[in-house]
Amino acid sequence: MSKRIAWINGQFVAESEARVSIFDRGLLFGDGVYDVATVLNGQLIDADFHLARLGRSCAAIALTNPHTVAEWTSMMHELLQQTGVTEGLVYLQVTRGTAERDFAFPKDTSPTAFAYARTKTLLNDPNAKGVHVVTTPDIRWARRDIKATSLLAPVLAKQFAKEQGAFEAFMHMDGIITEGGSSNAFMVRNNTVTTQPLTHTILAGVTRHIILDIAEAAGLAVEERGFSIDEALAADELFLSSATTFVLPVIKLDGKEIGGGLPGPVSIKLRELYIARALQLAPPQDDR
Amino acid sequence: MSKRIAWINGQFVAESEARVSIFDRGLLFGDGVYDVATVLNGQLIDADFHLARLGRSCAAIALTNPHTVAEWTSMMHELLQQTGVTEGLVYLQVTRGTAERDFAFPKDTSPTAFAYARTKTLLNDPNAKGVHVVTTPDIRWARRDIKATSLLAPVLAKQFAKEQGAFEAFMHMDGIITEGGSSNAFMVRNNTVTTQPLTHTILAGVTRHIILDIAEAAGLAVEERGFSIDEALAADELFLSSATTFVLPVIKLDGKEIGGGLPGPVSIKLRELYIARALQLAPPQDDR
Repeated sequence: MSKRIAWINGQFVAESEARVSIFDRGLLFGDGVYDVATVLNGQLIDADFHLARLGRSCAAIALTNPHTVAEWTSMMHELLQQTGVTEGLVYLQVTRGTAERDFAFPKDTSPTAFAYARTKTLLNDPNAKGVHVVTTPDIRWARRDIKATSLLAPVLAKQFAKEQGAFEAFMHMDGIITEGGSSNAFMVRNNTVTTQPLTHTILAGVTRHIILDIAEAAGLAVEERGFSIDEALAADELFLSSATTFVLPVIKLDGKEIGGGLPGPVSIKLRELYIARALQLAPPQDDR
Repeated sequence: MSKRIAWINGQFVAESEARVSIFDRGLLFGDGVYDVATVLNGQLIDADFHLARLGRSCAAIALTNPHTVAEWTSMMHELLQQTGVTEGLVYLQVTRGTAERDFAFPKDTSPTAFAYARTKTLLNDPNAKGVHVVTTPDIRWARRDIKATSLLAPVLAKQFAKEQGAFEAFMHMDGIITEGGSSNAFMVRNNTVTTQPLTHTILAGVTRHIILDIAEAAGLAVEERGFSIDEALAADELFLSSATTFVLPVIKLDGKEIGGGLPGPVSIKLRELYIARALQLAPPQDDR
């Protein structure tokens, strides 16, 4: 059992004591950014990528990142020590802080920063057997490249998926799939891996980036373009990626079986290669 | 001086004690709705309209409104008593409550509800002399009719306005003005008042609704359609409306003077009529 200890504004406290003012702009305006880093064998995976993205998210909304990468990293290590989480995630959030309510940025207000850790089964994720996905219109704002906490649109998309008995919703603009509610979306056809290019339309997934590298190294063709729901329904395979699901085969889209309703060889191979790389970065530790 | 007392989940507390968990979905996801009601002469104005809209906002995101209109109203009256606010606003917010972080809705979680009151000069607002406005692309999500707290896009729009020395930003889609960052936008031409119709594109402003009624009663033509930035620049008058600004003449748009740079007769008249109606609803009280 991990301990429920959070970190907020420089202090480690019981999660139940980790609170913010009702005047925090994260609560009043969704005026904040976040990131989620992976924990495996008690170690952080690709935390530098996640912290670099957190920095870019801050910069994109002119929010001062209150900590250096070294400070964030040190805090995350301490959080893992204190909570005892060895497989799962660390969640990080920065808001524009507490101030009298006014849409424009306040002067002389310090950001609010907090983090917590959670145990989650990553290596033996039962969803690796394949998940069901539904499609839904992408009604989000125009800057999906910023990992901001104004997340009501993906909340509604993922609730829609849940109500349909699905694991994820692939969002689409005029029939072209952008990404999942909290994942990137991929199609495999004739050994070509296709996914949306990096524009303001999608989040630059850290796992997405690594998967494309792995796919190319494995001799697969990689094509960065939008693909339609119709193409997806006719694909050899579909899969999704995120920091805490790695690669998950999608075996049903909008009720229609993909690849005969079983995980396809490319999805399985990419998950294996992703995990092999992760275990190299974070090898199993002695259980002293 | 008013007292800094807030209300949260049924309790009146010092504002400094009004706090929520870091696991509140309002903070993690912007998963909440809000409304702002007007206070004049110690009384609430059109609170029923605002509470009806709060109910509609809750329903639109399948969030249980934790209180009846009577309960909200009674709380707001008590808040005004306790704080001593006689002219200004009451801010109300409901979030989907505190739960383990997961995009889809949690089960068996109670909403978080809170409110606070603020003194603001409404009748003698110096901005009634006319404000400057700039235009900026409308990058918000597709459901602007829901008064949700995922507000980062209007935050950035209003920060842009502030940096340009303007009071407000009129947002536009492909050159057609939708509304202001926290107001509705109106154009006056040949005694016709034009504003966006009520669709998912804009918020159904309570003040907007009342102004259109007042305008028609005053013999003005009312036209609900989108108008372009070019039309706006060539208009006789522009004005904006909100619950806490009533009607404010816009005397400059993107640096160009509108109506010779002075408030126009229709804007002035509509503000006068709006205030006359408000004072009928909330007449000055004896100062006992």
